[in-house]
Amino acid sequence: MGTQPSTDRGRLTRQRIVAAAAEVVAEKGALGASLDEVGARAPASRSQLYHYFDDKNDLLLAVAEATNDTVLDGQQDLFDHLGTWDGLVRWSDALVAFLEERGGKGGCPIANLLGQLGERDDAIRAVLASGFDRWEADIRAGLAAMVSSGELRPDADVAWLASSTLASVQGGLVLSQARRDPLALRRALDGALELIASYRPI
Amino acid sequence: MGTQPSTDRGRLTRQRIVAAAAEVVAEKGALGASLDEVGARAPASRSQLYHYFDDKNDLLLAVAEATNDTVLDGQQDLFDHLGTWDGLVRWSDALVAFLEERGGKGGCPIANLLGQLGERDDAIRAVLASGFDRWEADIRAGLAAMVSSGELRPDADVAWLASSTLASVQGGLVLSQARRDPLALRRALDGALELIASYRPI
Repeated sequence: MGTQPSTDRGRLTRQRIVAAAAEVVAEKGALGASLDEVGARAPASRSQLYHYFDDKNDLLLAVAEATNDTVLDGQQDLFDHLGTWDGLVRWSDALVAFLEERGGKGGCPIANLLGQLGERDDAIRAVLASGFDRWEADIRAGLAAMVSSGELRPDADVAWLASSTLASVQGGLVLSQARRDPLALRRALDGALELIASYRPI
Repeated sequence: MGTQPSTDRGRLTRQRIVAAAAEVVAEKGALGASLDEVGARAPASRSQLYHYFDDKNDLLLAVAEATNDTVLDGQQDLFDHLGTWDGLVRWSDALVAFLEERGGKGGCPIANLLGQLGERDDAIRAVLASGFDRWEADIRAGLAAMVSSGELRPDADVAWLASSTLASVQGGLVLSQARRDPLALRRALDGALELIASYRPI
């Protein structure tokens, strides 16, 4: 790993480089992105780039971490209310609304990086896996709270349901990306919600 | 589109080029694959490549079509028995077993191409979407047969369940690829199966 910044100014410079790199990666793909282009976009000199990052892979690792944060921080308000049935429905509606705004395009940024780099760089794969782990943990915590409050029955296997729900999100995003149509995500989430609903007390 | 071959020999040459291109894309990524490398691998001369394909994009389109066929033809025997509950379980077990053999690696080849090319080339995106459409249609036909035979209730919305099930497959593959662990696919498929099972007659 390159040098971690010790000053606020250094941290801002590093953040600016990572943000520029994330943009270039989104436009050109992880393999097509060049350090020259990241430097021009940031802007940052070659010596600044190599001060903070060992090489392109090290920069892509930072992009992966930043991608996790962007995706998960963007849902934090929704995650905070996942502990009720209404909050769960609101979260699923928000995901579909977000995709509708984009015309079904783009897919999940974490999954997109995984598809490009997951089989090439094991450290980056592990970072992206940790993003999915955090996401799944937030869903699981919400479902566990619903069990505690009695909104779900005690026999609900929240670890299984959380993993299965996140898979529905990811797969729904893949199919929607292919079809340019948010319907697949809506159907996938309706499936996940109906499965969870089957564990509500009768 | 490049020239479609009119002779058996031409068809074989074209197939050999596409197969070589699919290998190079799997190894180097779609953007990293070069025509030179495809030519060397096939082997095929530059003039042969340009006889059958207009350019690299045209070749990638053929790779996308071949990828659909590989993924779907590989499941055809399983699809043929999707019209019973036992066949559905066997199909899901086979997907998990296939992923276990690979140590959770690799993800879905159709989704991998989509992640690399879906936002860059709309013709290729449409081909990959048609692969998912065929896959979903096979699942839907199986579920419809189960409704006809009485294994599922008439109120089962087979279009929704088929789409939701394919999303579970795709999302389970994404999470398993990230974690190098087939568990996420197993959990996602168990979710899909339990949802379908809720439409069995009581």
